[in-house]
Amino acid sequence: MSGASGKPALRLGIAGLGTVGVGVLQLLRDNAAAITARAGRPIEVVAVSARDRTRDRGVDLAGLRWHDDAAALAGDDGIDVVLELIGGAEGTARTLVESALSRGRDVVTANKALLALHGAHLARIARESGAALLFEASVAGGIPAIKLVREGLAADRLLRVGGILNGTCNYILTTMRDTGRDFDDVLSEAQALGYAEADPSTDVDGWDAAHKLAILAGLAFGQPVAFDGLHVDGIRAIQACDQHFARELGYRIKLLGTARRTGDDAIEAWMRPCFVPKNAPIAHVDGVFNAVVTEGAFSGPMLIEGRGAGAGPTASAVVADVIDLARGTALPVWGVAPKAEIACAPRSALGGEYYLRVIVRDRPGVVADIAAALRDAGVSLRALSQHDAAREPGGTVPLALVTHHTTEAAMISVISALEALESVVGTPLLLKIETV
Amino acid sequence: MSGASGKPALRLGIAGLGTVGVGVLQLLRDNAAAITARAGRPIEVVAVSARDRTRDRGVDLAGLRWHDDAAALAGDDGIDVVLELIGGAEGTARTLVESALSRGRDVVTANKALLALHGAHLARIARESGAALLFEASVAGGIPAIKLVREGLAADRLLRVGGILNGTCNYILTTMRDTGRDFDDVLSEAQALGYAEADPSTDVDGWDAAHKLAILAGLAFGQPVAFDGLHVDGIRAIQACDQHFARELGYRIKLLGTARRTGDDAIEAWMRPCFVPKNAPIAHVDGVFNAVVTEGAFSGPMLIEGRGAGAGPTASAVVADVIDLARGTALPVWGVAPKAEIACAPRSALGGEYYLRVIVRDRPGVVADIAAALRDAGVSLRALSQHDAAREPGGTVPLALVTHHTTEAAMISVISALEALESVVGTPLLLKIETV
Repeated sequence: MSGASGKPALRLGIAGLGTVGVGVLQLLRDNAAAITARAGRPIEVVAVSARDRTRDRGVDLAGLRWHDDAAALAGDDGIDVVLELIGGAEGTARTLVESALSRGRDVVTANKALLALHGAHLARIARESGAALLFEASVAGGIPAIKLVREGLAADRLLRVGGILNGTCNYILTTMRDTGRDFDDVLSEAQALGYAEADPSTDVDGWDAAHKLAILAGLAFGQPVAFDGLHVDGIRAIQACDQHFARELGYRIKLLGTARRTGDDAIEAWMRPCFVPKNAPIAHVDGVFNAVVTEGAFSGPMLIEGRGAGAGPTASAVVADVIDLARGTALPVWGVAPKAEIACAPRSALGGEYYLRVIVRDRPGVVADIAAALRDAGVSLRALSQHDAAREPGGTVPLALVTHHTTEAAMISVISALEALESVVGTPLLLKIETV
Repeated sequence: MSGASGKPALRLGIAGLGTVGVGVLQLLRDNAAAITARAGRPIEVVAVSARDRTRDRGVDLAGLRWHDDAAALAGDDGIDVVLELIGGAEGTARTLVESALSRGRDVVTANKALLALHGAHLARIARESGAALLFEASVAGGIPAIKLVREGLAADRLLRVGGILNGTCNYILTTMRDTGRDFDDVLSEAQALGYAEADPSTDVDGWDAAHKLAILAGLAFGQPVAFDGLHVDGIRAIQACDQHFARELGYRIKLLGTARRTGDDAIEAWMRPCFVPKNAPIAHVDGVFNAVVTEGAFSGPMLIEGRGAGAGPTASAVVADVIDLARGTALPVWGVAPKAEIACAPRSALGGEYYLRVIVRDRPGVVADIAAALRDAGVSLRALSQHDAAREPGGTVPLALVTHHTTEAAMISVISALEALESVVGTPLLLKIETV
């Protein structure tokens, strides 16, 4: 079929018919007329691939070519664009994307792990074959974060990019804060509600969010970020008492990612739970919502907040990429010609203000011991809080410390010293204080 | 000069060397290398025009062609793109843009009044000559709101677009809320600080923000909005007592614009001070910051917040448009082929919950009279508040009423009835309650 404009339809092949794949089919049907008008030509799904041919997915697949092997989509010459909606950094998804790109076929993907771990490699393949590789849906779901950084802020020198990039973690932390409940309890509820996976580690250990941060950083700084240097902490160690101390001290706890330019060819990048001031815009991004923050030398600070996951938002992002392809406005992967990977500063080079929570046996001299450990590392204190009401069975009590600006190396040495004290129970929790 | 890519430089002519024009020159110099890499070719300013040739603007203009008459830039064949940074819906700005577009020359502008009042006409000229007309900087300064709506959300069916679009009004309302001071007092301070013009009416009467809303609505709904049907209220009538009632009732006052799809070919659009719930994301956009909100059938709700004015943010948006032109990715004005203007629903067709503040002479029977007026119009009350502490010299006292859902027509008739009461002083204030 060709459009009123006379331009031929753009033909899509979809690999993966999970919630996102089905959402894409639904959106393309619901909004067909408007999409054709905006794209300047019709957009048609002509082929699909999924594991189970017989499953009822609630959408009509009649008339579409079916490939049992997703990789076969790469070789289907009746397709202009492959939509990779399978997921995973390796296996079928990677094979399909590499194979399609190397044949010069355009690819749209929602796959954050693939881009974070193999983005530099894929960008080279795409550049050599002249194919486009688009991945708006890989970061922050329906939020057009990639377009914002690569095009909307293309004129500016970005100093910082980051945000709240995992809805599962944000939901868990928000619920812990609002209910006073513990991590395990809230995680179980999130699993029952479908907000967390049966194996939650990709989310709660910070990896999913870190993949998205690496992609954003690559776009902001114009070159891929070496993912293995990115410091990643998850949220499992956050306890109810930490939420309590955060409120008392005027903060909220968020799993926050930041990539910051520290020099002409130097960045720091990390994904970790942080204390953020309760009046900061990012402190009000709650529940399953995601937010991306940027700071530019000219544009100043910016925040965009929206739904970071789900069939509808993700389909909106996937099809926006398809419309860019139909309009002929797709850009190189990092917005510029591919460059070598940039390394992140090591953890020991980071610094800032910190929140340190220690569980101690409540006996004479314990605060003096802790204060001595901080003094020995050259760390000065801004606030200290302990509540007898928080005393646990067995006579332990949580103690919160807030430092002035110091180095992360100093804090690591403080933690080693504290762990050696007989009066300290378990591993102290160290959170960065980030005044975004 | 031609770039490493071999592509010739994109040559710019800048009309207007006020803070924005100078900001653009500064940004193009500061970020030249990165911009060339992103655009795929060098971008060069070759000509300028401004009123006073001798004024020191703090940037070097040596080597640039000078035109005393800005309109002459349209006929300068050494220019690829005209940057119109003069402003104003008529006069030189309009003449220059029309003339440049009709000669097939691309135009980038920051001019919201021009786009809101003559966008349909300019889009036709651009379409006929094949020229591009870009205007990212016309809405919300450094926030890439136009790219967000026209490209980032191109796949979705937008139900609503709007936001806080005037930093002067947001600064005044925020300061009134935080200090308890009156409108006139805060306005004078804003003028002294340079946040408000000597003649503040374009800002405080809502016109500047309404122009921006009309542009966003045109993009969201794919056709220009007839500006004269847009209902506009400014913020002059807001008093310290309204800020007090807002806090007591759990709201914040924001000058908020909304354009909402109410049918296949029907919209409502208005710019007016509103009560927004204090926990809504938009309630936390304070000071001179702007925010754009969208709601899509698939993407859900989204908010983007940043600096809505100033040399740096505006220059960032202007040059992002220039990079799109250099990359060859510029789009038609409304994202689709031009269509006829769409009319806004008349004010009488609007509805919602309302805040109504009445100044009354404190005497027996006054509340009964007001309650009767509401009853006669079929309006039911959700809350009522009066504080004797707020009694003014002369024995008048402000009374706040919050209604259940009703029609704006009913509220207009209530206000007429109240104005006829001897016990009511001045004109009651009607604000919409908007749960964005």
